[in-house]
Amino acid sequence: MVAPLKVGVAGLGTVGSAVVATLREQKAMLAARCGRPIEVVAVCARSKTKKRGVDLRGTRWFSDPLKLAIDPSIDLFVELMGGSGEPAKSAVEAALASGKAVVTANKALLAKHGVALARTAEKQKVALNFEAAVCAAVPAIKTLREGLAGNRINRVYGILNGTCNYMLTRMEREKLSFEECLKEAQRLGYAEADPSFDIEGHDTAQKLSILASLAFGTQVNQSAVSVEGITSITPQDLAAADELGYRIKLLGVAARTAKGIEQRVHPTMVRKDSPIAAVMGVTNALTIDADGIDPITLVGPGAGGLATASAVVADIADMARGVRTPPFGRPVAQLAVSHKAPMERHEGGYYIRLLARDLPGTAAAIATRLAQQKISLESIVQRHLNGEPPAGSGKGAVPVILMTYATTEDAVRKALAAVGRDRVISGKPQVIRIEKN
Amino acid sequence: MVAPLKVGVAGLGTVGSAVVATLREQKAMLAARCGRPIEVVAVCARSKTKKRGVDLRGTRWFSDPLKLAIDPSIDLFVELMGGSGEPAKSAVEAALASGKAVVTANKALLAKHGVALARTAEKQKVALNFEAAVCAAVPAIKTLREGLAGNRINRVYGILNGTCNYMLTRMEREKLSFEECLKEAQRLGYAEADPSFDIEGHDTAQKLSILASLAFGTQVNQSAVSVEGITSITPQDLAAADELGYRIKLLGVAARTAKGIEQRVHPTMVRKDSPIAAVMGVTNALTIDADGIDPITLVGPGAGGLATASAVVADIADMARGVRTPPFGRPVAQLAVSHKAPMERHEGGYYIRLLARDLPGTAAAIATRLAQQKISLESIVQRHLNGEPPAGSGKGAVPVILMTYATTEDAVRKALAAVGRDRVISGKPQVIRIEKN
Repeated sequence: MVAPLKVGVAGLGTVGSAVVATLREQKAMLAARCGRPIEVVAVCARSKTKKRGVDLRGTRWFSDPLKLAIDPSIDLFVELMGGSGEPAKSAVEAALASGKAVVTANKALLAKHGVALARTAEKQKVALNFEAAVCAAVPAIKTLREGLAGNRINRVYGILNGTCNYMLTRMEREKLSFEECLKEAQRLGYAEADPSFDIEGHDTAQKLSILASLAFGTQVNQSAVSVEGITSITPQDLAAADELGYRIKLLGVAARTAKGIEQRVHPTMVRKDSPIAAVMGVTNALTIDADGIDPITLVGPGAGGLATASAVVADIADMARGVRTPPFGRPVAQLAVSHKAPMERHEGGYYIRLLARDLPGTAAAIATRLAQQKISLESIVQRHLNGEPPAGSGKGAVPVILMTYATTEDAVRKALAAVGRDRVISGKPQVIRIEKN
Repeated sequence: MVAPLKVGVAGLGTVGSAVVATLREQKAMLAARCGRPIEVVAVCARSKTKKRGVDLRGTRWFSDPLKLAIDPSIDLFVELMGGSGEPAKSAVEAALASGKAVVTANKALLAKHGVALARTAEKQKVALNFEAAVCAAVPAIKTLREGLAGNRINRVYGILNGTCNYMLTRMEREKLSFEECLKEAQRLGYAEADPSFDIEGHDTAQKLSILASLAFGTQVNQSAVSVEGITSITPQDLAAADELGYRIKLLGVAARTAKGIEQRVHPTMVRKDSPIAAVMGVTNALTIDADGIDPITLVGPGAGGLATASAVVADIADMARGVRTPPFGRPVAQLAVSHKAPMERHEGGYYIRLLARDLPGTAAAIATRLAQQKISLESIVQRHLNGEPPAGSGKGAVPVILMTYATTEDAVRKALAAVGRDRVISGKPQVIRIEKN
C-alpha cells in the first residue's frame, strides 16, 4: 500500500467537523478510490473543549493555524476557518510556500487573493483546490475546470446564494414583503443577523468571480463584478414576473460579449421553462453555455456542513490520487486581467415597472421617450390593482409594466431619466434585467 | 514544454470528426489546461474519401483499427466506432494490453465487457475513461467518480435516453398516441428506423449499468438491469399524471435497498416539482441522492456530435494531465458482483389505471382485492371521459386511476391478478411505478 496522505484541518466548525467525520467513515471507500489511505493527523481550532461530535483523540492539536500549516507531519492543509483576512490568508500562504497542497472552502480569500495564491501553488508545484467555495456539493468548479476542458464557454449564470433564493421563493409563494421575509429567514437561521453580505449580492459576487476565472481564463477579481442585491424586489414584481412567464432570481452572470467579459450580480428575470427558474428555496444552481452544445445545468445543495464537506473531501481525494490542475484551470501567467465592464453598455431585455400618472398623454409621453432611445417593446401590461394601490403610488397612479426587446442599459437609463423629467410617473421606476435562456 | 500527448482516433463519424476538430480548435487552451499539447497523429475509419469537414492531411491513416490501437506512434487510443462486438472490442483490448490509455464513448462495450477491460487497464496501469458513454457533455461519470468521491450514494436516477424523453414530451404536449409520435420522431431523425433499442429501454439500461457500478461499487452488468420500455404509455396516462401532479419519464434507477442494489429501467411517475420532471425534449438528466445532503441534479445534452465530443475531449485532457482513476471508481477486485434484483420485491408507490366495468359491486371488489394485499391508496380518481371512451374500453367501462402508498410489486401483481379473476375490469391494467423525490 502507498503511504497515506496526511491531512491537517484548520477550522472545526460544522464543515470542519463534517470533513473529519467523513474522512473517517468513508476511509475504506476513499482508500479504494484513491489507491492510498487518507488520514487526518492534526487539527486546529480556537476552542479545544467545544463538543463537535467527532473523536479527536490521537489527532494532534494545534492552537495556531500557522504552525499547523507548515508542520512537517502533514502533506495537505485544509483551511476551513473562512474570511479573506487573518489567520486564513497567512496560513494558506505559509502552507503553499512550504510545499504543501491546500484545500479551502474560502470564497472570500480566493476572490481577493486567488491569483497570488495560485501563483505560489504553481511555483511550488502543489495543488490548490476549492470546490467547496462555490455551490458546495455541486461540482461546479470541477465541471468548468475539467468536465468542459475543451469547450469554449460563452456564459455561466447561477443561483449561488441560498439565502436570497429562499427569500425570493417565499416572497413569491406567500406574497410576503421583503422585510417580512427577511425577518422570517433570520428567525429560521437562513439569513444572518447582518444579512447585507447575502442580500446585497456580495456573497454571489465572490463566487461568480471564481467561476468567471475558470470559465474565461481571467484573473479572479471580485472588484470586476457589478453588484446589485434583492432589497428593491417587491411582491408586485414577483407577481408581474409570474404573469409574464418569468421568475425573478438573484443571478451571478459572467458572459463573453463583443465588448469583453461581463461579470454581474443582480435580480434577474428568467423564463419559467428554464431549469434555473425551477430552482426554489435554498438550493443552488449553475447553467453553463458552451459553443455548439445545449446548456448544462447543475442543481443541488449550496451550503450546509455535510454538503460543503462533500466538496472538501472530493478535493482531498483528488490530491490523494496525485491530481494537480492549475487552480484556475490555466497557468496564472496565461490568465487575462479582469476589468469591470460598465453596466451602461450591457445589452439585453429589460423589465420596467412604472407608476404612471393617470392623466391624458402619459402613455404617449412614455412611449415617445423609449422610442427616442430606439427601445422596442415586447409587451406592455397595465396591471390591475387588486384592492389598494401599491405603497407610494398615490392617487391616480397606474402601475405599468414594460418588457423591452434587447437594448442597452444606457438607452434604458436615458429613456427613464427623460420620463422622469416629463413628470408623468410617480416614484422611481423598477428596472430588472432579463436573462435569455 | 512537455512532450505532446499523441492521440489516435478510430471512428470518424459525427463524434470522431468533432473530436478531431475540437482538439485542433482548442489546441492552445487545452495545452494551457493540461501543461502539454494534445496532437491527433493518426485516425482510422472505413472510408478514406468521405467528406468530414476536418482536414486530415498530415495525419496518418489506418484502415484497420486494431493496427492503430497498438501503433507505437500513439499514447492514447480513442475508440468511437461503437458496438459491443468487433472491431471495437478487440481494438480497445489490444490498445490497453499494449499499455496505451483508452477513451471510449461506447456504452454497449462497457456494459458488456467493462469489468474485463477495467482489469486490463489496471494491470497495465493505464487509464480507461468513458465520460461520453452516459449523458454526453454532462459530467455524470466524473461527478460520481470524483465529485462525490467521499459520499455514500443511495440512489441515482435519470433520463438517459433523449429519444424516449422527446417522445413522452410530444405525447404529453400534443396528446399524440405512441405510434403517431414514433413516426414523427423517426421523420425528424430523433428515432432510428428500428427504434426498439431506445424505446424498449435497452439504451437506458446500458447507461444505467455503468452509473450503478460507479455509484455502488458493483461490477458493471447490463443483465442485472430489469427493463421495461415506453411502448405501453398512452396519452391518457400522461394526462392522468398531469392531473395528479406528476410527469411520466423513462427513468433508469439504481438504488440501494435493504435487499441489495436495484437496477431498473421503466416508465416512472415523478412529481412535477422535481428537477427531473422539468426536463423536456431530447435533454438528459441525472439525479444523485447521497447520505445527508440534498439531491444533486445534472441536466444537459445527452447526444449529438459536439456534445459527445465535449466529453471525449475532457477525458483526453485528463489523460494529458496524467490523471488516472480506476475506470469504475474502485479497483476491479473490490467491485461486488451485480445480481438482478427481482422486481416482485420492489417497494414503492404505484399508479394503476383500470377500466372498471360499470356494474354494482365493482368498486367494492377492487378495493377488497387491494386490501387483501395490504395496499393502501393515496388517491382514487374516476376519470371523466372526454367524448369517446378510450380504445378497447367497450361499453359501460369506466377508467379508474389508483395511486397507492408504498407497497411491494408482488402485492400489486397479486391484487391485480385477483381483480382480473373477478371479471370486474376490461383489458389489462396499466401499472406505472412512482419514484419518490
